[in-house]
Amino acid sequence: MPTYTAPTKDLQFVLHDVLNVSQSGVPGFDELEADFTGAVLDEAGKLAADVLAPLNATGDQEGCRFENGVVYTPKGFKEAFEQVKEGGWNGLDIPEEFGGQNLPYTLATAVGEIMVSANMAFNMYQGLTHGAISAILAHGSDDQKATYLPKMVSLDWTGTMNLTEPHCGTDLGLMRTKAEPQDDGSYKVTGQKIFISAGDHDMSDNVIHLVLAKIPGGPEGIKGISLFIVPKFLVNDDGSLGERNGVSVGKIEEKMGIHGNSTCVMNYDGATGYMIGDMHKGMRAMFTMMNEARLGVGLQGYAQAEAAYQNALAYALDRLQGRDVTGVKNPDGPADPLIVHPDIRRNLMDQKSFVEGARAFTIWGASLIDKAHREGDKDAEGLISLMTPVIKGFQTDKGFEMCVAAQQVYGGHGYIEEWGMSQFARDARITQIYEGANGVQALDLVGRKLAADGGKHVMAFFEMVKTFCKENGDVDGMAEFVEPLKKASKDLQAAGMFFMQNGMKNPNAALAGSYDFMHLFGHTCLGLMWARMAKASLAALAGGASDAAFYETKLTTARYYMARQLPATAMHLARIESGADPVMTLEAANF
Amino acid sequence: MPTYTAPTKDLQFVLHDVLNVSQSGVPGFDELEADFTGAVLDEAGKLAADVLAPLNATGDQEGCRFENGVVYTPKGFKEAFEQVKEGGWNGLDIPEEFGGQNLPYTLATAVGEIMVSANMAFNMYQGLTHGAISAILAHGSDDQKATYLPKMVSLDWTGTMNLTEPHCGTDLGLMRTKAEPQDDGSYKVTGQKIFISAGDHDMSDNVIHLVLAKIPGGPEGIKGISLFIVPKFLVNDDGSLGERNGVSVGKIEEKMGIHGNSTCVMNYDGATGYMIGDMHKGMRAMFTMMNEARLGVGLQGYAQAEAAYQNALAYALDRLQGRDVTGVKNPDGPADPLIVHPDIRRNLMDQKSFVEGARAFTIWGASLIDKAHREGDKDAEGLISLMTPVIKGFQTDKGFEMCVAAQQVYGGHGYIEEWGMSQFARDARITQIYEGANGVQALDLVGRKLAADGGKHVMAFFEMVKTFCKENGDVDGMAEFVEPLKKASKDLQAAGMFFMQNGMKNPNAALAGSYDFMHLFGHTCLGLMWARMAKASLAALAGGASDAAFYETKLTTARYYMARQLPATAMHLARIESGADPVMTLEAANF
Repeated sequence: MPTYTAPTKDLQFVLHDVLNVSQSGVPGFDELEADFTGAVLDEAGKLAADVLAPLNATGDQEGCRFENGVVYTPKGFKEAFEQVKEGGWNGLDIPEEFGGQNLPYTLATAVGEIMVSANMAFNMYQGLTHGAISAILAHGSDDQKATYLPKMVSLDWTGTMNLTEPHCGTDLGLMRTKAEPQDDGSYKVTGQKIFISAGDHDMSDNVIHLVLAKIPGGPEGIKGISLFIVPKFLVNDDGSLGERNGVSVGKIEEKMGIHGNSTCVMNYDGATGYMIGDMHKGMRAMFTMMNEARLGVGLQGYAQAEAAYQNALAYALDRLQGRDVTGVKNPDGPADPLIVHPDIRRNLMDQKSFVEGARAFTIWGASLIDKAHREGDKDAEGLISLMTPVIKGFQTDKGFEMCVAAQQVYGGHGYIEEWGMSQFARDARITQIYEGANGVQALDLVGRKLAADGGKHVMAFFEMVKTFCKENGDVDGMAEFVEPLKKASKDLQAAGMFFMQNGMKNPNAALAGSYDFMHLFGHTCLGLMWARMAKASLAALAGGASDAAFYETKLTTARYYMARQLPATAMHLARIESGADPVMTLEAANF
Repeated sequence: MPTYTAPTKDLQFVLHDVLNVSQSGVPGFDELEADFTGAVLDEAGKLAADVLAPLNATGDQEGCRFENGVVYTPKGFKEAFEQVKEGGWNGLDIPEEFGGQNLPYTLATAVGEIMVSANMAFNMYQGLTHGAISAILAHGSDDQKATYLPKMVSLDWTGTMNLTEPHCGTDLGLMRTKAEPQDDGSYKVTGQKIFISAGDHDMSDNVIHLVLAKIPGGPEGIKGISLFIVPKFLVNDDGSLGERNGVSVGKIEEKMGIHGNSTCVMNYDGATGYMIGDMHKGMRAMFTMMNEARLGVGLQGYAQAEAAYQNALAYALDRLQGRDVTGVKNPDGPADPLIVHPDIRRNLMDQKSFVEGARAFTIWGASLIDKAHREGDKDAEGLISLMTPVIKGFQTDKGFEMCVAAQQVYGGHGYIEEWGMSQFARDARITQIYEGANGVQALDLVGRKLAADGGKHVMAFFEMVKTFCKENGDVDGMAEFVEPLKKASKDLQAAGMFFMQNGMKNPNAALAGSYDFMHLFGHTCLGLMWARMAKASLAALAGGASDAAFYETKLTTARYYMARQLPATAMHLARIESGADPVMTLEAANF
């Protein structure tokens, strides 16, 4: 059965060596001294390794049950959830007035990686609640905040997000769920929502559903959608739980993975709901949380890969099979460990270089969200908005690919559920789909984000890379990292230029290349991250760091990413430059 | 639930337009007139669509059961197996003296695609039997052939292959199963074998296990391995079934997919076995079947992608979501079908261009096996030996990737088991692992096949591509296909050159690039296939073919492959040329 150890040293490296968070001047970041973040991460790591990770495989095997209208989580989840509650983990970055600790989202993201790596399906109960909290924080009335937030922050109540219906996922304008206004200012919500993660379960006293619905007579399409709070149990004025509301579970879905999470069909039958935010502005309310939610899914992508990698590595060090062609390495054993074989190493280095690059990218992204929220920095907000579909789409594609690669190290054992490697791949698969399927991410990136604010943010990104290359190209030891980054960035700019020159007269010339652009952008970002990590490592080594091997390993891994992963940018550019015709020519009837 | 329709027209196109099989002069190929192969494929298609495909999802959901020592297959399997028996499908390419029809393996391969697409887990009961038949045909004594083959050809008895043990898969030299000689010339086989596909079940009267084992006192390692026939029930002299042999099922494995196939742990406790072939030459006996077996797995890769593609396409044509950015296509509906969206088309074209290219590659490969067997053509044998790891490794990697891509078209529904798209991905995943994990295929290709017979076969491959390009480059309409093929072939040659120049002094310089080389080779082969298919299509159109749209579609798909897939060759070459260092530098302890 797989095990998990939190990579606290690598997380600390990103926070302090690379991002130097405590010195960044962002309000509240001064608290993020290395000792403090180290203590928090260690504590999270203990919970993750001792409590959450051991429930990952059992939760997958047992799954959730729906009996007589009640959803039961797998054995042990309830007790583990109590420990998450007691640790106050859900309120880490929530304002103190609602019971949180008001720490930066950056730190919450680092902690989140640990929780997700240990047990993604379990973590979603808390994660969805956190998303719902963010929505109420941003758009709720003072009354709504006072009524719901403290209980949700403490996880006495959990939250859900209800968007999808059987006939509409991406295209929410087709939504049929309706909300009819009542005399008391509330609404009666009626309709069916599907794919509702953590939709119901036995670990909390109440479930607070955030539901998108249309008020009859409002504008057509997505302009007529509003957002409602629909609690499972109505809340009395004194905060105690009242009547059961008209919302029920239709069934729990049988899924490819994340079996430990109860994905529900939710039926609303005239359920009492309270509008949150402005009428007909429900989509906007959803979108304000989207950077955070999508970054969270991008995190899931690499966090699953991290967990899978740890186990693949352990297996490669332990399993004896074949001999090193350049000379026996384990003469006293019947064979050498798998890790002597070049192709096993190639596979492991692919995983390692991706995971560590994605970790830096994600935590940097989280720090931009903090900058935007805590300083009102519009440039930071524009930059993270631009990069969010990349973090989500690229990292979940690669994360899944790396889980599959990790499974491959096990050979036949990787296919047997008992060994646990299949679960990483099956669980990671959902990250490519939910919170906007990756094709939609690519569309968002190319169709919306590139041109946002007159293209200002993508220009700022290029300028940032250029500045980095200029400042570091001649620094001792940096040329080998700066040169490939320059090349990747040049490919990315050429792709952007192709879109500008051709997309105006034919949008499909850009959209046909959108998926490749997302990956090209992702590789460039990870190239930038590895160059920054190389710079930090060289600095640490020059400063006489005691753990030289740790920093040398970062340099070796950076070299691997540059040599073995960045060459993908030219391929993506070539595909993009082939334009719309190869993709659009065939008549639908001739496929 | 997914459906399946046999692509008989596409199969006929490969057999006749591209390969022109009936005119090829290979003994027996004159039977393969278009009318005849069309009738056979139609018949197979009917069985596949009406009987096998409907059992695919139910077989996955129900799985096999092991109760009181008996393995039960899912509901309906037994009846379907009777129909496969009655149709004589298993003997298509087996000599008539053992009850077969002695038709070319090429035709059996085309039929095999249909069966595998419809229900891979089910087809494996027959497929493993076919493999065991081939081994007995090639290495069995006349007595053994007479005793086992007719019953196996008729599927009254099925067969298995027993290689893997808990501690050894790739490295069979570590094998512990032993075979002790008895006075009567038989052996007592003792040991445990795992991952035995179709290891036991309730659909046949007997199971004939082919088991690798070591005779005590023989040479160390793989040089001391022999092959044994170990029947579940011993066979009396009159051919009737005798006593139960000392072989039993330990358990059936819980796997990621192919739940309809019983993957067994087999325990041999002094079971009576009969040596097949020469003592200590068991590995050689296994290897003679390997081209065929591995081609069969490469076929599974694209056959699963074909089935997944058919369903993804149907969904993309049916599901209404969003609007075409260049103008509404379905004004009377609430939204346009998915297929209007460029990134959905990109996804579908990736699938389509891979599947059709792989089909041509595989059936061409099968025709080379026929040429080798029926004509004793050593060049054909050398060429298919070279390309076998490419067919297996590249096509199963891509096949899985395309099943995942097809699943993605369904959005959230793709993750729900009820829709059936998860199964294609889960089932296809095994093809990358069994019959030699794909890393082992890459090792076989670069470490063994490239240099085989002094590099003669890879030189012949390059010469063949060169000749094709020379002969067709100036032919009207062919330049757009020949030029990208030339470029791909040039990249492949450069990679081969890099290995020659660097691999001698450091084998790891070649092995570190072996996986990329396998993919680079695969793309080049599919590029060649698309160029050949383009040529055949242009010829058909010039000849006034009645179904012009069919051939035009081939040309459009060929253009897609050239524009969107072949650019991968440059990336693989760049990775290869980065050499051993990025892969080999890191100490195992520092991963």
